[in-house]
Amino acid sequence: MEQKPVVEKIPEGGITSPQGFQSAGVCCGIKNNTNSKKDLAMIFSEEPAAAAGVFTRNLFQAAPVIISRERINNAIQAIVINSGNANACVGKAGYQDALEMGTITSQKMNVPEESILIASTGPIGQRLPMEKVREGIAAVSSELTPSPEGGDLAAQAILTTDTTIKKAAYRSWIGERPFVVGGMAKGSGMICPDMATMLAYITTDLGVDRLMLQEAFGEAASRSFNLISVDGDTSTNDMAVVLANGSSGLVIERENSGYELFCHILREICRDLAYQIIYDGEGATKVISLTVKGAPGYAEAKKIARAVLNSLLVKTAFFGEDANWGRIFAAMGYAGVPFDPHKVDLYMGSCKVASGGHNIDFNEKEVLSILQNKEVFITIDLGIGTEEIVAWGNDLSYEYVTINSEYLT
Amino acid sequence: MEQKPVVEKIPEGGITSPQGFQSAGVCCGIKNNTNSKKDLAMIFSEEPAAAAGVFTRNLFQAAPVIISRERINNAIQAIVINSGNANACVGKAGYQDALEMGTITSQKMNVPEESILIASTGPIGQRLPMEKVREGIAAVSSELTPSPEGGDLAAQAILTTDTTIKKAAYRSWIGERPFVVGGMAKGSGMICPDMATMLAYITTDLGVDRLMLQEAFGEAASRSFNLISVDGDTSTNDMAVVLANGSSGLVIERENSGYELFCHILREICRDLAYQIIYDGEGATKVISLTVKGAPGYAEAKKIARAVLNSLLVKTAFFGEDANWGRIFAAMGYAGVPFDPHKVDLYMGSCKVASGGHNIDFNEKEVLSILQNKEVFITIDLGIGTEEIVAWGNDLSYEYVTINSEYLT
Repeated sequence: MEQKPVVEKIPEGGITSPQGFQSAGVCCGIKNNTNSKKDLAMIFSEEPAAAAGVFTRNLFQAAPVIISRERINNAIQAIVINSGNANACVGKAGYQDALEMGTITSQKMNVPEESILIASTGPIGQRLPMEKVREGIAAVSSELTPSPEGGDLAAQAILTTDTTIKKAAYRSWIGERPFVVGGMAKGSGMICPDMATMLAYITTDLGVDRLMLQEAFGEAASRSFNLISVDGDTSTNDMAVVLANGSSGLVIERENSGYELFCHILREICRDLAYQIIYDGEGATKVISLTVKGAPGYAEAKKIARAVLNSLLVKTAFFGEDANWGRIFAAMGYAGVPFDPHKVDLYMGSCKVASGGHNIDFNEKEVLSILQNKEVFITIDLGIGTEEIVAWGNDLSYEYVTINSEYLT
Repeated sequence: MEQKPVVEKIPEGGITSPQGFQSAGVCCGIKNNTNSKKDLAMIFSEEPAAAAGVFTRNLFQAAPVIISRERINNAIQAIVINSGNANACVGKAGYQDALEMGTITSQKMNVPEESILIASTGPIGQRLPMEKVREGIAAVSSELTPSPEGGDLAAQAILTTDTTIKKAAYRSWIGERPFVVGGMAKGSGMICPDMATMLAYITTDLGVDRLMLQEAFGEAASRSFNLISVDGDTSTNDMAVVLANGSSGLVIERENSGYELFCHILREICRDLAYQIIYDGEGATKVISLTVKGAPGYAEAKKIARAVLNSLLVKTAFFGEDANWGRIFAAMGYAGVPFDPHKVDLYMGSCKVASGGHNIDFNEKEVLSILQNKEVFITIDLGIGTEEIVAWGNDLSYEYVTINSEYLT
């Protein structure tokens, strides 16, 4: 009898759970706040690591995104990340600032400049306060630690309007030998990644070939970060990166069973972090977990999920705990994907609320109790194919309006 | 010296301002409310009229849309419209109900069934209360009047969450002989028409060939109804129709100057009604008037306008009177249209706030005073072409969330 691979979640685990990774987070004053919120993080790999990444497709790309994309195929040793300022749309000066973040990190850590990735998140269009950033990089470099606390400090330092840190780690074994995959992320608003994401960083002590890593990570991102949407806005700074430093002594080959196991864990941790992002969506009172099944393909299912989860009318209906399934149909209908309206079934929880594209009698009390949950499960069955995806979104509350009308001021 | 054609707006004018049109609006109880809100309207042309229309592209099409689209090439004499129920996504029964609305109207008005258009607006997924509708059609048929009051009653009866009626009429002359173009509309939520619109009805006493009418109306809609967005949601019931009954005795030919004059007035009245819809957008505190210029073409300009005007982050920034131009850039960047970010200039009012894709110094006090207006003018110059459009949207307020989370309940 074949044994299922054993995968265990590490309680309180994060990016420093795999061997050979250190991190830290400090407050250097970029956020310019009085309550000393952390705003500069560093992840350091003791050995050069294979890297893979997915980056925003927004035409306006922040300087750190441009630089990190160019370097992603190098052996990577450090990632330096600031919050409180996106370093986006500030011209050549912003590009120079981003380069300098790398140069300083290179000097402090004594590793090549080309081995450093850079990321920023925060408001667009303002120059980075480089005096503070220089001090911050010096401070964070000296506080790096492989302890869980180091991971938590880094996870704090990348947050913007997030209310909690997002982290996870999973351990598994190849034969008797253990390896770990860890991660952290930030989200909250401007979350509708496309071939990219908010900020997410995954670390592993496996040895993985770069091309294999990119393939596995692209697939994992398409089933996680790219299926969440807080507000439909794709940021100028979205970035998800995985580092594999081989410190466990285990090396993954495409031919051995380790590759599939690694892909499975990578997908799990990406989904775990994506879910944490949605759960902490700006001003959200609910998570909408939307299954689109019976679809002709991934792209079609994703477009439909996105149209539904981004619809203001759908989002406000969920906030109002209103079984307004017609708004879901309307959003599907303008998704730009061909399907047969007469074959569409719709479920709220396990309760069918529409069949063959039209209304049916259903137990309104039962559906209301489903809608009153913090997490609402919706299933759309297109009835024309075999593809199935699960995408996540939020409701739209007064709180979202508050947060986003007062973000800069 | 060539004289500019004289066009005058008729104070308090509407769909009954052109000769040979009658209308009325009654309360028959579809809205099931205690304050007797009107919910059934009829427009009647004393002579068979040439008609043209643009209809929703949503895959879920309400039954009245399907029927009206089939009949739009016929000579039209009546349009019967209910609010309070969309008659959408209720299967074959809904189709029968819509047909019956036409049949009853045909009997009451003694005109062919094929000469009747049908429209509905309101919540999706519920059967029409046909007993009430039958009584309503009988009542509205007997109250038809060519007076301005008839136009106002009809304009009231098509509203849903709108707070005011939308109407307009323009008079002009060919030689010494006058003609009139009138109109009414409803909007408020679910407004992001695409080759279609919310409900809008235009009447004229000109004689216009059907094909010419369709061409002129398609162009007018593309520069008005199709450039507004309250919330990005395209409804299952959107419809805009123009009727030309020739009662003025004037006939438009493509070769004479009357055609251009008619196109001009048609565009003006469509823009007038579209603006009224945006001005009354659900829970909106501001109108965003967005000019996209220097664009390679209409389609590109429209996509960019739509991405910006539908962005929750942009909408909430305007609600907060926050000069967060970076959010506008971010929305442009994911619009799916190729452009050169380094050529983009952005203005708020007449004040340039970003140049060549990045930040510049600007007078923040001046921009704040611009953002505090009820109507905010934004200009994006892509710097790569000659196309220019003006599109309209709203900010996103607490009130929108209230209205849409409590619509059904």
